Amino acid sequence: MNEKIKWLREKINGLNMQGMIVSNPVNIRYLTGINAEGVLLITRKENYYITDSRYLEEVKSIITIDDGIIVSNLVDISEYDYENFFSFCENVGFEENYITYATYKKYMQRYKANNLEETDGIIEKQRMIKDETELEYLKKACTLTDSCFSHLINYIKIGMTEKQIAYEIEKYFFENGADGLSFETIVASGKNSSKPHAKTTDKKIEAGDPITIDFGCKYKGYCSDMTRTIFAGFIPEDIKPIYDLVLSNQLQTAKDMKEGAEIRILFRNVDNDFKLHGYSLVHSLGHGVGLDIHESPSINKSNDNTLKANMVVTNEPGIYIPEKFGVRIEDTVLITKSGCINLTKSDKNYIVVG
Amino acid sequence: MNEKIKWLREKINGLNMQGMIVSNPVNIRYLTGINAEGVLLITRKENYYITDSRYLEEVKSIITIDDGIIVSNLVDISEYDYENFFSFCENVGFEENYITYATYKKYMQRYKANNLEETDGIIEKQRMIKDETELEYLKKACTLTDSCFSHLINYIKIGMTEKQIAYEIEKYFFENGADGLSFETIVASGKNSSKPHAKTTDKKIEAGDPITIDFGCKYKGYCSDMTRTIFAGFIPEDIKPIYDLVLSNQLQTAKDMKEGAEIRILFRNVDNDFKLHGYSLVHSLGHGVGLDIHESPSINKSNDNTLKANMVVTNEPGIYIPEKFGVRIEDTVLITKSGCINLTKSDKNYIVVG
Repeated sequence: MNEKIKWLREKINGLNMQGMIVSNPVNIRYLTGINAEGVLLITRKENYYITDSRYLEEVKSIITIDDGIIVSNLVDISEYDYENFFSFCENVGFEENYITYATYKKYMQRYKANNLEETDGIIEKQRMIKDETELEYLKKACTLTDSCFSHLINYIKIGMTEKQIAYEIEKYFFENGADGLSFETIVASGKNSSKPHAKTTDKKIEAGDPITIDFGCKYKGYCSDMTRTIFAGFIPEDIKPIYDLVLSNQLQTAKDMKEGAEIRILFRNVDNDFKLHGYSLVHSLGHGVGLDIHESPSINKSNDNTLKANMVVTNEPGIYIPEKFGVRIEDTVLITKSGCINLTKSDKNYIVVG
Repeated sequence: MNEKIKWLREKINGLNMQGMIVSNPVNIRYLTGINAEGVLLITRKENYYITDSRYLEEVKSIITIDDGIIVSNLVDISEYDYENFFSFCENVGFEENYITYATYKKYMQRYKANNLEETDGIIEKQRMIKDETELEYLKKACTLTDSCFSHLINYIKIGMTEKQIAYEIEKYFFENGADGLSFETIVASGKNSSKPHAKTTDKKIEAGDPITIDFGCKYKGYCSDMTRTIFAGFIPEDIKPIYDLVLSNQLQTAKDMKEGAEIRILFRNVDNDFKLHGYSLVHSLGHGVGLDIHESPSINKSNDNTLKANMVVTNEPGIYIPEKFGVRIEDTVLITKSGCINLTKSDKNYIVVG
């Protein structure tokens, strides 16, 4: 049986569950490598993956005998089969953060489980700690992101539209071996950069515009995430102090991030320093990155946990002056016992393009 | 108050609900035009949209006084407010097909509603019937898709990879005013076309390959969906009878689709004709299209409903010979009282490229 499924079996047994229904396709990909639509059933004896004819061939080509997973076609599973998967199981776990209320009710009826029990995100929690293979993929995605940024610095010219730049990013990733984008690229220039969650528009880049570029790619399913605020033509004097304040906090956070660091204090330190200058941190300071672009842990003021070695998270302070401009600087970093390692390594000094 | 919210209020009152929590962002966009993250509360007296600082500016710029929606910042809503939104409400509706089990439990706690009641997809059901503005956007998305296809016929050459073609599609949509893709483009050539749900690969197009291209774009949020199977260099003789069988069924379905047509019979007619020839229809015959690429109704054998005027659905029969090849032909069509109108109009005769 594969190691991750072995881990899951031990984990649920420890929680007095005799089975689990895994429905979240990202959790299934994490556990098995399968990238399809279907459901993974961890029963007392066996592991079943039930999918439909669209994916059957491909899934069978991925799964080996060592995985210990029985792959079945949805149409071959009878009502009787469903009723019997979890016979003699007292408690069967399910993903309360993924399945809808309607699906929960369907599962209750279909599986005839004694009790469907919330698993409190056990798989998502395990996904926070990356293994060697995952780190290799994450590093590759981050390296591609850095090289894309180097390309952009030469590419961006005054008069181009935000969308044109976003499109060039996608093209670069496409031509250089990424699976795709981690998320819809944000290119926000001038006033648009004042929105923490800006959308890329047809606005043309003008001299004196700050340009916030928030982007990333996927490599073998694993995401990167980086933001830089750069400048077109020249750097307006009023932005410099804000840029310096964001950067000094980003660098300080990078110094503070390591195994054992208290997450809420990382957030508060930045927020407090911003407040000393009359601003505040209006979004989280960061988030986990992996198969999903936003994973646990969220680096925010109400997270009482600490960072752990082999977490991969973002470090992304930002300040936004409504109707004027904004600055955000973000890296994807790997937490270690003694500190953190930037996986995205692009220059964070003032950059002027165009 | 806007017409769609008025409709919703009447609808829930008829179901003996005094309020509703609308959480699905697509449903919120449908009702209000708001394209953000937040929750829409239909209370006894008022309509509230609660969002966070990332979206506040933008949402306020969209909503007018005539919409009758109070826009609030999440951080300004106290526990006390939540408890009082639905005071004196016996039943409050929620979207059981959208919210997770965990969110359901959170809502139960937060809103102190007497009873949270499933709404059985009322908004999704209403979304099936498109109004004039929606039809205008859908037609525009379909026209863009046709013109992209014309471009592709001249663009595709033997030796190009599937990914290159998929990328050209995205580029075309980008340069011609689409919001983006409706879904990840499928370009499946040769053996890859034998998978009903193929992924686009780095395989190069070879002479004699069928190429199934399944693609679409969004215009103001509304999707198009079209598939053509075309041929590189020449048409292998063994594919022709399959192509002809798929096409004749696609054309027959287009004749049969109109208000009142029984959905399960549309499916069965195609499946039966396929079976007479030794094949079968392994996926649904079609699906609704709108703000989501897959909406109700699903055109399958277990749907007991009939088509209605102003539904927009796909008509997409396909046959797949494992390890050999596949053919799928798909249009997005508008249902009328007397028949159906193809919104995608590209040629369906044999097309040879390269």
